[in-house]
Amino acid sequence: MKLIDLYAKMKKDISYIEKELERSIDCDNVLLRETSLHLLKAGGKRIRPVFVLLGAKFGTYDLERIKHVAIPLELIHMASLVHDDVIDDAATRRGQPTVKSKWDNRIAMYTGDYIFAKALSVVTQMSNPAIHQIMSKAIVEMSIGEMEQIRLFFNTEQSVRDYLLRIRRKTALLIAISCQLGGIASGASEAVARSLYAFGYNVGMAFQIRDDLLDLCGTEKEIGKPPGSDIRQGNITIPVIYALQNERLRPRLLQEIQRIQEMNGQTDIRDFIQALLSSGAVRRAEALASRYVDKAIAALDRLPDIQAKKDFTGIAHFIGDRSY
Amino acid sequence: MKLIDLYAKMKKDISYIEKELERSIDCDNVLLRETSLHLLKAGGKRIRPVFVLLGAKFGTYDLERIKHVAIPLELIHMASLVHDDVIDDAATRRGQPTVKSKWDNRIAMYTGDYIFAKALSVVTQMSNPAIHQIMSKAIVEMSIGEMEQIRLFFNTEQSVRDYLLRIRRKTALLIAISCQLGGIASGASEAVARSLYAFGYNVGMAFQIRDDLLDLCGTEKEIGKPPGSDIRQGNITIPVIYALQNERLRPRLLQEIQRIQEMNGQTDIRDFIQALLSSGAVRRAEALASRYVDKAIAALDRLPDIQAKKDFTGIAHFIGDRSY
Repeated sequence: MKLIDLYAKMKKDISYIEKELERSIDCDNVLLRETSLHLLKAGGKRIRPVFVLLGAKFGTYDLERIKHVAIPLELIHMASLVHDDVIDDAATRRGQPTVKSKWDNRIAMYTGDYIFAKALSVVTQMSNPAIHQIMSKAIVEMSIGEMEQIRLFFNTEQSVRDYLLRIRRKTALLIAISCQLGGIASGASEAVARSLYAFGYNVGMAFQIRDDLLDLCGTEKEIGKPPGSDIRQGNITIPVIYALQNERLRPRLLQEIQRIQEMNGQTDIRDFIQALLSSGAVRRAEALASRYVDKAIAALDRLPDIQAKKDFTGIAHFIGDRSY
Repeated sequence: MKLIDLYAKMKKDISYIEKELERSIDCDNVLLRETSLHLLKAGGKRIRPVFVLLGAKFGTYDLERIKHVAIPLELIHMASLVHDDVIDDAATRRGQPTVKSKWDNRIAMYTGDYIFAKALSVVTQMSNPAIHQIMSKAIVEMSIGEMEQIRLFFNTEQSVRDYLLRIRRKTALLIAISCQLGGIASGASEAVARSLYAFGYNVGMAFQIRDDLLDLCGTEKEIGKPPGSDIRQGNITIPVIYALQNERLRPRLLQEIQRIQEMNGQTDIRDFIQALLSSGAVRRAEALASRYVDKAIAALDRLPDIQAKKDFTGIAHFIGDRSY
């Protein structure tokens, strides 16, 4: 199945969530309304809400109820993106100017704070304390992950484990709890919710590895911003860590990375990317992503054979094949 | 009663909250532990936890329970301070270097995000949905207030109402819900919680007006940072709004404010402050603060005559007399 078919099938519910997302961030403050809407209209795949909706199919599906989980999870993601942009000095995201480039850093910071606060305000409609606990713990981990990323900028001694822990916090946890909370909010059993979590976690890991590959190997048109933005800001991702393990290549890569750092990222990095592509590191990272996809699909084993299970499988395969 | 006597009397409970605050922000990430502890150790009056504890005296006082409200409220305050410092370009707060001056803006932003996330994580220990709803609504209002403040920087056409709405969001609401949630968390009646809210709200308004007066009329030693930091960054506070209403003085003040803006705040502002002091605006602002103190004390009328009521009255009087 193609991803586009899944979205077409879920169109009515996704459109409803989209409308509710817009309503949830509405505000009398003209500036906040503009910045928040700008962020929302910049689009995105709404993967987290889609995962909530699919997770909820394993319980008693009630959109009016689960929207109080789907909306906050997307808002939390949006808030973290706008704060990331402050850090990244990114001028565009998804081909659109970022809030910080269209307005300024202060406004981007407070827009993030506002959207985050709105996320919390929506989720208070749910009375189950487990939902709040799961969500707040994930948010704490996310913020630790942000700081870890800064701490390890341009650190060429970091391990594969450092990287995996970071993307776990940065991406996988929020996707994991999207699946899990979809299940919990619709009254699925604990065992089902655990399987949903495991699926989301492994898909999230694969997704981030693929995203990091795309940043190095994609074209500007494919990724909506110039390639290599990770290494330019000092974010050492898995293909780079693998390539640094290649003794023959390591000295040249270290030199390149040092040069990129000294130029504050404002330099031609084609040589760096060429070196990576020749190293086999890209292939190793692809294989790692595939292993996570396999684990994700295995996590679905114990779930009942409903359509949502096929849809989840389809998404996992799509992520595994994601082109770059 | 002096404020110091109240703190002495509550010392055991305040010390416990202080220890729990420290425990709540503990973290494996070395950088986050350092920045958060730096922020915590910079001190502060812990007014919000003190108000929670006093509010809780109107119900069944149980420190182990109400700490799950007292700690988050102080953490939310701390998180908003560290984000304010990013905006303010403040090098010191309470005489201590700010996180952004000791580290950098990115680290200050993520430290705020982390402390805020931790606040949420602590409050999930409470199962009463009303607590979450009240807290999240206040946080939304706070973040709108931050943006309003930026929007109105150097805006000399703003009204007294603009100012009051801003300090309501920036300060008064969080103090109001500190009193209210202390009551709710200890099982006080709705009527009592409403009175506690009204008390906190009016005390909070008086407190911020006094703080804004102090920023203009205090010495660097008294306020822990150079005076006039508000006007330097463009924050037009109530004494300035009153002074601008003085037709004779207005042209000179507008000229001064324009000069300060053009110099990005990096200029001598003694003339500006002299003009203010000669205008009667300071006296009017003092009178406004006193009216809020009176309203705060009136809000206590319907509460039972317990010691906490006397303590609240003492705090209100202290804020009314706050020297600058």
